[in-house]
Amino acid sequence: MNDTSYKIGMLGTGRMAINLSRLWAAKGHRIFIGSRDPQKAKTVAANVEGAVQGGSYRETAAFADVLALAIPWTAVTATLPNLGLLDGKILIDMTNPVEQTAVGMQLAIGHTTSFAEEIAQLTPGARVVKAYNSIYFDVLTDPQFGDQNASAFICGDDVTAKEVVAQLSQDIGFDPVDSGPLSNARLLEPLAVLWMQLAFSSHGTDIALKLLKR
Amino acid sequence: MNDTSYKIGMLGTGRMAINLSRLWAAKGHRIFIGSRDPQKAKTVAANVEGAVQGGSYRETAAFADVLALAIPWTAVTATLPNLGLLDGKILIDMTNPVEQTAVGMQLAIGHTTSFAEEIAQLTPGARVVKAYNSIYFDVLTDPQFGDQNASAFICGDDVTAKEVVAQLSQDIGFDPVDSGPLSNARLLEPLAVLWMQLAFSSHGTDIALKLLKR
Repeated sequence: MNDTSYKIGMLGTGRMAINLSRLWAAKGHRIFIGSRDPQKAKTVAANVEGAVQGGSYRETAAFADVLALAIPWTAVTATLPNLGLLDGKILIDMTNPVEQTAVGMQLAIGHTTSFAEEIAQLTPGARVVKAYNSIYFDVLTDPQFGDQNASAFICGDDVTAKEVVAQLSQDIGFDPVDSGPLSNARLLEPLAVLWMQLAFSSHGTDIALKLLKR
Repeated sequence: MNDTSYKIGMLGTGRMAINLSRLWAAKGHRIFIGSRDPQKAKTVAANVEGAVQGGSYRETAAFADVLALAIPWTAVTATLPNLGLLDGKILIDMTNPVEQTAVGMQLAIGHTTSFAEEIAQLTPGARVVKAYNSIYFDVLTDPQFGDQNASAFICGDDVTAKEVVAQLSQDIGFDPVDSGPLSNARLLEPLAVLWMQLAFSSHGTDIALKLLKR
């Protein structure tokens, strides 16, 4: 168990959301799962062991010090205005703005901006961190590959927020890699597209990216 | 030693070029190093053990089955027209079109195209492969991190060309990762910018990227 227990709001009820809720709850963090359908969120929460509640997006945001955005990117713009004030809250963006194109899965947004930066524009006051966008939900629960643990690439403009997310990453067995300012989501989003293409074509989803050091 | 020995043309005399020449020559491949200054290329070649010659860009291209583009990206457009016919030759693009911007090192080209694709446009007939663009020249000579060898991410449209580059990567101790079509240079070029930022800010250059599998 950590010294620091966070109040984590999980926006979404998909597999990433459920796995992260379970893992962080097991580490002693308090979790509130939010859905467009509050009843569904309550049902999902009831099935996760630990201090886990469920309800509306707005309740989730009000509860949380750390909010994790675990909904499809196409739903983000419509969802954010329902969260209420986010001043000072840490918002972990784990989305990828991808679309199918003639040359395969590609970014719909990029290089001169990133979805994370657009999210930051839409959430004034929130401390937006991009993370977990190139980790498969099953790998979340088992980040160890032989003697190597997968990297969690993290970028953001608020140093403290990044430290919190780094701690939350270590809590679940990842090697956090501070990947610079939020504008580097322009690099982490393409990284995720590469990972997705490898996962869903040649390699299968039991893969992860690692920054090797020595 | 391999079964297959290639005739490799190294365009450039920098540290990536010298290290790759040395490593591949040691594996029994024949090398021709080319420079704008043919005399310099000859001097460089004389200092590399093995079957290594030096001369002009045009001589290098004429010699090679496999050409490696190891010059700064800003010099590429002016250099390519000096190579002569490239029909069927494999051209390994290891450049990164980066520039300093207000938000740090970023890509000058991207998402709706890549430098590798522009190079392919400029080299009709050549089989362009993007590779080695996120590997530090010192890591080239020592790709082993504990029990993990670094990945060599490789993309291109010609399957045979990619297989050759995969073999050349294995020859020097890398784990080749087929990263899809050449248009995926739109993903490998941002990956390299991330790697550069990590290398030249927080982590130092003794790092490498790895696709973990199990």
